[in-house]
Parts: sequence; C-alpha cells; structure tokens
Amino acid sequence: MDTFPITFLPDNTVIEAEAGETLQEVADRGKIHINASCGGEGVCGRCVVELRAGTVLASPGLYLSEEDFDKGIRLACRAKIDGPATIFIPIDSRADASFFKKAAQAEEELTVENPDPMVRQTCLILDPPCQDDNRSDLDRVNASLAELELFDNDIDLSAMRRMPTALRESEFKVTVSIFYELPLQKPEVPPYGRIVSFDTSTSDDNFYGLAVDVGTTSVWIRLVNLATGKVMPSVGDLNGQISYGEDVISRIVFAGKKDGLKRLQNRVIDTINRLLERYESTYPGYRKKTFIMVAAGNTTMAHLLVGLDPKNIRLSPYVPPASTWPSIRASFLGINVEPHTVMKVFPSVSSYVGGDIVSGVLASGLFKRPELTLFIDVGTNGEIVIGNQDWMTCAACSAGPAFEGGGVRCGMRAAPGAIESFLYEKETKKHYLGVIGGVSPSGVCGSGLINVVAELFRAGVLNKQGKYVEGSAPFLRQGEDGWEYVLSPAENNSVDHDVVLTEIDIENLIRAKGAMYSGYQTLLESVGLEMGDLERVIIAGGFGRSLNIENAITIGLLPYLPVEKFSYIGNSSLTGATLASLSGTMWRTAFEIKEKMTNFELSETPGYMDRYVASQFIPHTDAYLFGL
Amino acid sequence: MDTFPITFLPDNTVIEAEAGETLQEVADRGKIHINASCGGEGVCGRCVVELRAGTVLASPGLYLSEEDFDKGIRLACRAKIDGPATIFIPIDSRADASFFKKAAQAEEELTVENPDPMVRQTCLILDPPCQDDNRSDLDRVNASLAELELFDNDIDLSAMRRMPTALRESEFKVTVSIFYELPLQKPEVPPYGRIVSFDTSTSDDNFYGLAVDVGTTSVWIRLVNLATGKVMPSVGDLNGQISYGEDVISRIVFAGKKDGLKRLQNRVIDTINRLLERYESTYPGYRKKTFIMVAAGNTTMAHLLVGLDPKNIRLSPYVPPASTWPSIRASFLGINVEPHTVMKVFPSVSSYVGGDIVSGVLASGLFKRPELTLFIDVGTNGEIVIGNQDWMTCAACSAGPAFEGGGVRCGMRAAPGAIESFLYEKETKKHYLGVIGGVSPSGVCGSGLINVVAELFRAGVLNKQGKYVEGSAPFLRQGEDGWEYVLSPAENNSVDHDVVLTEIDIENLIRAKGAMYSGYQTLLESVGLEMGDLERVIIAGGFGRSLNIENAITIGLLPYLPVEKFSYIGNSSLTGATLASLSGTMWRTAFEIKEKMTNFELSETPGYMDRYVASQFIPHTDAYLFGL
Repeated sequence: MDTFPITFLPDNTVIEAEAGETLQEVADRGKIHINASCGGEGVCGRCVVELRAGTVLASPGLYLSEEDFDKGIRLACRAKIDGPATIFIPIDSRADASFFKKAAQAEEELTVENPDPMVRQTCLILDPPCQDDNRSDLDRVNASLAELELFDNDIDLSAMRRMPTALRESEFKVTVSIFYELPLQKPEVPPYGRIVSFDTSTSDDNFYGLAVDVGTTSVWIRLVNLATGKVMPSVGDLNGQISYGEDVISRIVFAGKKDGLKRLQNRVIDTINRLLERYESTYPGYRKKTFIMVAAGNTTMAHLLVGLDPKNIRLSPYVPPASTWPSIRASFLGINVEPHTVMKVFPSVSSYVGGDIVSGVLASGLFKRPELTLFIDVGTNGEIVIGNQDWMTCAACSAGPAFEGGGVRCGMRAAPGAIESFLYEKETKKHYLGVIGGVSPSGVCGSGLINVVAELFRAGVLNKQGKYVEGSAPFLRQGEDGWEYVLSPAENNSVDHDVVLTEIDIENLIRAKGAMYSGYQTLLESVGLEMGDLERVIIAGGFGRSLNIENAITIGLLPYLPVEKFSYIGNSSLTGATLASLSGTMWRTAFEIKEKMTNFELSETPGYMDRYVASQFIPHTDAYLFGL
Repeated sequence: MDTFPITFLPDNTVIEAEAGETLQEVADRGKIHINASCGGEGVCGRCVVELRAGTVLASPGLYLSEEDFDKGIRLACRAKIDGPATIFIPIDSRADASFFKKAAQAEEELTVENPDPMVRQTCLILDPPCQDDNRSDLDRVNASLAELELFDNDIDLSAMRRMPTALRESEFKVTVSIFYELPLQKPEVPPYGRIVSFDTSTSDDNFYGLAVDVGTTSVWIRLVNLATGKVMPSVGDLNGQISYGEDVISRIVFAGKKDGLKRLQNRVIDTINRLLERYESTYPGYRKKTFIMVAAGNTTMAHLLVGLDPKNIRLSPYVPPASTWPSIRASFLGINVEPHTVMKVFPSVSSYVGGDIVSGVLASGLFKRPELTLFIDVGTNGEIVIGNQDWMTCAACSAGPAFEGGGVRCGMRAAPGAIESFLYEKETKKHYLGVIGGVSPSGVCGSGLINVVAELFRAGVLNKQGKYVEGSAPFLRQGEDGWEYVLSPAENNSVDHDVVLTEIDIENLIRAKGAMYSGYQTLLESVGLEMGDLERVIIAGGFGRSLNIENAITIGLLPYLPVEKFSYIGNSSLTGATLASLSGTMWRTAFEIKEKMTNFELSETPGYMDRYVASQFIPHTDAYLFGL
C-alpha cells in the first residue's frame, strides 16, 4: 500500500501514513497529541487542525463552516490521508501538558510510622551446602523460612532463576522478599506468601513501593520507602488516553472500536512509564528495589489499565465486569518495572463509584470517625459519599463537564490562561479577573465559572433563575445564544474572540450543581437525615484545590454550612493508594470500606428527579436551606 | 553480514547461514536433526556429515582421518560456514525418530475411578443482574461460589477478560474452572483457589488434563479426561535436546554456553508442542478444554523445562537450584495451550534422583505396601529406590551409557537394526540374532548387549573376568582392542563394517552393572538388610521393556531372586504424572514420597567403592550370592 509523508507543525514531525488513515490515527501513531473529546466520533469539534500544504480527503461536515473549510481547517478525526500533507495543530487542539510540569506539587515529604507493607523482606543466614547437606537451594531457603514460622511460600520463576547466584554471591546471607496475598473474605486464613525476589544486600534504601492514581484526565504516581515509611513528592501528567476522549463515556465508546481497548491500555501504561522515568534522576535504579505498586482509579480507568472491556459499565443496569482485581505482575501489563513488582488495584463499589473513591475514603478517615461526613470528589462525574464509622452510602452524579470547563462556550481546563477568580465592583460596575499563570485570558475554568456566577448573582447581574438582569451591567450584550456577559474582549486576550459567559453556560452550571446537590439530599434522606445534620464536608480531587467554598455555597454546589466544617484533602485517591502501598492493614481496610458502602443509582432512586428539578435555581428553590 | 544458502541432503532443505556459524547451528535453526552426543564439543564424532559441494572452514582434528577429510567428511559441530555449501547427513548421524512413530504404544485405554484433579469445575446458576442488583460480574460469581463454601478465590486476568461475555452468552449459567493450590507444608490450611476459566457449556468431553514425561532421550505425553478418569494412549518422540548431547551432563554443559539454556528449553518445548499436535486429529480442539498439565522428569530435565540453569547439579556437593516448583502457566513457557492450563512439575529428591523417580514410586505403589521392594529405573543413570510403606532410601548410580548402547563399539539405541536377542548353540557353535524391526543388523542395543554377554558366559565363551576364552568359538578374533566376537560380518549387515563385541565393550557393561549392583547393596546395608530380604523388584523405564530378567541376573545386573518377584511397570514416570493429573490427592502424595526418601550420594558413602570394585566380575565376586 502507498504511504505518504505527513508533516505535523509546529513540531515539524514527519510520520509516514497509509492512504485512508485519519489524521488523528497518524498523529496517534507518532505520539503527537491532538484533543479529541468525543473519542474521534467527529462530534465535538475539538480536533481542529489546519491543512497548510498537500491534500486530505474531507468535507466540512456538521462542525466546520464552508468558510473555515476553504481556509484549510479540518477535523483530524475525519480527514483521511490521500497524499502527502503538512498539518498545523493550533494551540487549542493541543493538550495542556505543560501545566503538569509546573504543577508538580511542592508537597511536603511525609512519613508514615511503622509501615506494614504487603511485601516483607527477611534476611536469611543459611548454612552453606556440603556433602552431608546438599538439599536444593529452594529447600534450604524454605526450611529457614519455616524456622521463622513463614510456611507455605510459593515462588516466582524469576526469583527462582536469580536464587542460585544470589545465594552464592551473598555467601548464603540473602534477603528474601515475600509478597503476601491477604485473603479478604476469610481473615482467619493465614496470608499466602510468594517469594518474589532474592537480593544480596539490604538497606533502608532498597525497598520501595509506588502509589498510582489513574485519573480520567491525569495520572499521578508517588514513590514510597517501604522500610522507613518516607513518602516522596508525587509526579503527574495528563493521562495519554485523553486523545481518545475527555470523559469516561467517550473512552468506553472508543474501547469498543477495533484495537481501541489495546490502544487505551497502551496509552495509560505509556503515561505511567513516562512518570516512572521522572524519579530516575533523584532515585537512580529505584525500580530494581520496587516491590509493590498500588493503583487507584475510577471503575473505567481500572478496567482500561488492566485491559478489560468496560462496555457494560455504560449499559443499564451498569454492571462492571469486575470490582476487585487479582494481584498482577506489573511488568506483564507493560509497565517498566522488574518482574518482582506486584500490582494491586483498588476495589470499586459500582460502575461509577470506583477505586479512586474507596481510596479517597480510606485517606479521609471518614470510615473510622463518628461524625456524619459528606465526602465529595467533583469532576465530570461527581462522586459523593455520606456516612461515618457505622455506615456509608454513595452515589455518582452525572454532573456533566461544566466543572471541568466543558459544555461552556469559553470553558477550558484549569490551565494557564483560564480565568479562575472574578471580582465585581458594584459601585463602578467594573470587574477584575484572576488568570492562571498570570497570562492574558483565553477562557474560564470550572472553579472560575463558579466564582463568576456567584459574584454576578450577589451583584444582582444574575437572578435566581440564572438569567441576566437586563441593563444591570455594562458588559452584558445580546449574543447568538441570548444574553451574555463579556469577561474579556478579544483585543485584551490571547484568543481571537471575546471570552463570554452565556445564559446557556449558566444553565449548564446550574444543572451540574443541581445534580450534585440533589445527590446529597437523596443519600441523606435515604437514612432519614437532612443537610443540617452534616458535621463535616470533605472535598477531594484537583477541582477542589481552587474551589472558593463561599462561592460554591452561593451557587448551591455545596450545602449552607459554616465554612469551618469544610476541608480540602487534595488528591485523596493518590493518598489512599500511598497508604495502601505502605500498609497491608490499610489495603485490607479498603475492602472493608468497599463492602460497607451502599451504592445508589440516583437516576433510579425515587425522588431524585424531583429534587433535581427543584434544584435548578441559584442557589436552590428552597432558598431557606441556604439561609437566604 | 553475508549469508549463504546451505543445502541439507537428503531432505534438500535450504537454510540461509551467516559466515562463521557452525553447520550444527545452521541445522539446528532449521530444525534439522544431526546427532551430537557431546553437545557440540567436537569430541564424540557422532555428527559426521559429508560436504558434497561448496566449502566450509574445517580441519580434520582429532576425530577425522586425513583420508576421510579428503573425501569431504566433516564434523557438523566444528565446520564453519564461509560460503554456499551442500551437506549430506548420513543415516548414522540422524536421530532414530521414526522408531517412536512405530512404538506409539498400543496401550489399553485405562480408566481411573473417581478422579479428584487439582482443577475443579462448578456450574453456577446466577441471578441475572438488574437495577436492584447490579453488583459486578465478579462479585456475583464470588458470592455464588461462597454459597457453595468456595471462598477466597483469586482469578486469572485471562479468565476475567472472558467472564462478561461468557456470563451473558450462557444466560448466567456458567461453568467456572478453579485451580486449587494445595499447601503442602501445612495441610490444615484450606486450598487456595484461583478461577482460571469461564465456559458456556460443560460436559464430560470438556475437561482434560495432560501428563508429560520429560526424559533425557524421549518425551511422552498422555491425555486424560478429568471428568471420567479415562486415560488416552500416550504419544512420544525423541527429546529435541538430543542434538545437544545424549546424557544430562552434556546438556548441563551446553546450558552453560551462550543462549544454551534458552535453546535447550526451546527444544523440549518444541517437542512437547509437536506431541500436542498429534492428539488434535482424535480430539480436535481438546487444548481449549485442557486445564492441567503435570510434568515429571529428572532433576536436570525439570530445570531445563522451566528455564533454570542446572549448572550446580554437576558440581560437588550437587545442589540443584530447586527440588519443588511453583504452579506455572504452561503457555508462559511457550507451550501451545490456552492461558488457563496450569503446569505442575514433580518434585525431586536430589540432583540425580529426580521427579521421574518420585513419579515412578508413586505409580509403583512401593510407598504404601509392606513388602521390602527394590525399584530400578535403568538408563544412563540408574536410579534405585529401596523401601516400603515405612521408609525409603534412594540413590543414583553412574552406570554410564552402556545400557543405552553407548561406550560400546557397535552400540546403538534400541531402534530398528539393533541386535536385541541372541542365542548361542553350544553344539554347533552357531549363533542366531534377533534384530529390532526385523531388518538387517546395524549394531547392538543395551538389552541386546546383556543377552549376548549372558549367553556367551553360559556357553563358556566368556569367563568370569569378562575375557574371551581363546578358541572357544569360531567367531572370535583378534581386533584392534584385543579379542572380539563377530556378531554380524559386514557382508550380512546394513553398515559398512563388522558388528562386533569387544572385551572393552564387555568391561564397560561390567562397570555399569557393577555400579547398579553395589548401589543395591549399599542402600540395603545402610538399613542393616541384605539382598535376600528383598520381597519384590520393580523395573521401570523403556530399557526394562525388552530386558530378559534371567540374563540380567546372569550378568549380575539384577539380584539372584526367583523370577516371580520381578515385575516390569513400563514408563512409570508417565504413569505417575497421569495419576497426579487426575488426582490432587496423588499430587500431595508425591510430596510425601519426596519427603520420605533418604538420598545417598554413593560416591561419598563409605564402602560403596569397595563393593563396586568387588562387583567387576560376571556375575559377581561373591558368586554364591547368585547361587552359582
């Protein structure tokens, strides 16, 4: 078959392509990122590229105007190769990967006391073999372990292959690493051990674990020292799967395409491998000494990581293939670690309340405290948990993408250029913008949206129905979607259009916050409680980092409670995975949490829809709940 | 690098070769068999080939005469490629693989009552998921298993991937196959289950196991039905490793060469894969339904099968890396079965008393009977076990290759053309030969050697010292190694020389039988018993099939006991593996046998050498032991 050179600008990377391939596929092969929120369905219009030279097969379709098409604008997921071409990828179509490099959190170095990881190291001092004692190496090792009451150890072939040399190099003083399966259903059964490695020396610097948070948008990993309990700063990056769609549903759809599952799995594994590289400069060779990897992710992410087709997750009655996972040799999945690294994946509760939430609840301590607590992780799906040490209920709310800047005309992710804070001066009718990265604005991120809407509501520019009050502010104007507020005119910003907030945008936000709020209500009412009974609200996830609690209460995303009841715990999914990598007890607890959590499918729970409809106001139809 | 076409005759197979490769390596790559008893060391001279055209780099060396060299004779392991060449492989340098096709034993179809294999199948009838019960598929399966008191099952990823489809295709009536690890050191611990497969239907024809006997010379496999206990006829072939040396020592040496271990492993896996193909015609698709594979082999064969370097096996104090093995996914080793097929490898006792002997003892019943029994497996190494239900001792005797036709001028394996039986008519001084396959003779096999020597001894042609009595027979003559007996002159046979039996050949045989006999004595005396106390003698292994018990007693290989005490049990290694594939109880018993067997390193046991020296007579220096 004929192949043609396709040049991608601005990087000037040339990829050989076959006739009939889409530009998206070609870029994908060359690991060049082009956004594709819809997973290549041709319906989101985010993969806009410019044909600068040559030719591709395409038509304007639904998303492109004839005018743009004539200018060379194409959708990368729809344009097919039929000759050499030069393609420019505009900044809007490229992922904001640079953000992660800057955001690498300047976390404090934590330490966990008395780690009890699932892998243990034991130093054995063996009698060297002689004519009167020529048992096999393995029999000698097992007999010595039995003296320490460590019976019934299985062994990995890779460890076996290393054993004879390690024993002799160490003159029969060898460090054995044993991974313990923890039987979860019958705790009276002793853990089942498996020798995974032999080492000739041991020290506190020789025994590591890794925590992994596999998010839909981003992946974070964190190295921990299993001997000392020391926790290293985490590193993160965009999940490479994002080229195939920005939310779990588009990933699930993509997984159903030819090779889709494999490609998604490869992408997230590639991301993890890149992140693993980042530790090498500070901890050279640490992977040789890494014995456990604990991963937490939502149910779809867990399936894609392990390579299981997630299709039933999005089909009623939403039955995921698995909610628990066996121990997996991480290298078997393609992760660049030694064969002795065992991967454990957090259990999930349901199709939409995943291992990231179980891990988050573990990190939050909710499960062991008496206070009635609301735990929220807001993203495309908002997951909520309500409960305490005695019981827990949970649900996922289809909040839609508004909190991540999606479904909003000028929405964007919380990346440089995003308007994040907003101040409206009632007297002068002027406003002031705070922009991430201190650059000129190019859009509004989710938390910015909340701040703008809350401020405009308080200023009387927006009414309870989320409609603009005509003539209330100088930046209001009629746009194509009705009234809109001009946050930043084109001449002041870095995009070629005014950055505005439309009434449709506000409607989307109200829908999203209403989905969350009616979720809290439904879970509380299911146990005969109400909002005022909440003693604590824990906000987790990247979105919470920049969330203004007051404003979130003002728009009705958070319940009207004293601010001191709220706390933000950051990436609790990663924190929970960190705890479990350091502690078998914590890992066992994760399963207790999973078992204890009662899941509600909100869309099928009586009353939820009524509450949802009633919530479509700012802050809420029952404004008295908010003290208003 | 330049490559050249090398044509191998008589098959006319062309292999591209690089300059500097040896002919043996090139043939090897093309899976063309050339004997190489020494493992390519250039010292056995068995890889003789003829250069018919072209050129190779070689010199006569130690093994070739100038005259042969001028005729184009080369050693395949020494001749290096430096251009195109045409090579003829004479019949003597090709393995006798054809024999196995004919020998495929016409066994009766056996049946084992009430099989209790390590893999169990359970049919689950599950409630299909609905809105009120949307647990994950795996949680549903595990809950149903827990109702059957089958807790704590781990699961293979491959089974997980199949699960959602299998559940729905079967409308939630699914057959689950669970493999049980049997903790051997602590039998009170319940077996640890692992789900290996989901199937949409089940029947007696859907549940198979495989027994594998990995011999140094040959590999046999046997299919069993785990549901009915029915045992299918076995199939066998030469172990493909034989190109790298005929005994375990040369294999161990070869494993130490570059890529040697990998090549040896690949060869035996290839052999197993070829044998697996052979069942396809009778049991099409049986591999999809095969869940367990139990392999038995000597200690070196087990290491090579699994890919462990066996080098310490031949270094004093003879410490093998392993004598027990973890469960292995057979497909991981390259065996052409489904990922759900678990391989178990028999435990061994010591470097030279391997899993084949443990398996043989299991098959023989020795371990559960009160009678004092001698168990013998004769090959290059003769392994012996003495004991009963209360105790067992064992040892390996370095018998050398005489019983396999090695170290004997006209020796050969028990293949067509081998003289196997021999009758000497004292009156006429004529002899009569029985030849395997009824063809004209080309050599003498091990059992034939015993028959010839015993008959000549009884006829007075040989004396007690193993020397010919001058003038006692017309076929005696002076040869290059002293006196020799002409069994078959060149004009009557299929080789270009007389087939003779020299005094050196007889010395080798006497050494071999002496090594065995003094082994029996040593083991018996270690427990204060003597030969006459033996109540039963069990002979195992291919060699025993054609062994004439009377003649073996006459030469002093077997003790002088009434013939009815002897029995032959065939390939007991394969039989033991068959039993273990059908029964977890039997598998557990194999470990009890291993634990119960006390191993003696004869070369380091006081008195062994004295007995060995005393045994260098026909039948023995203490002839009264034989009633002579």
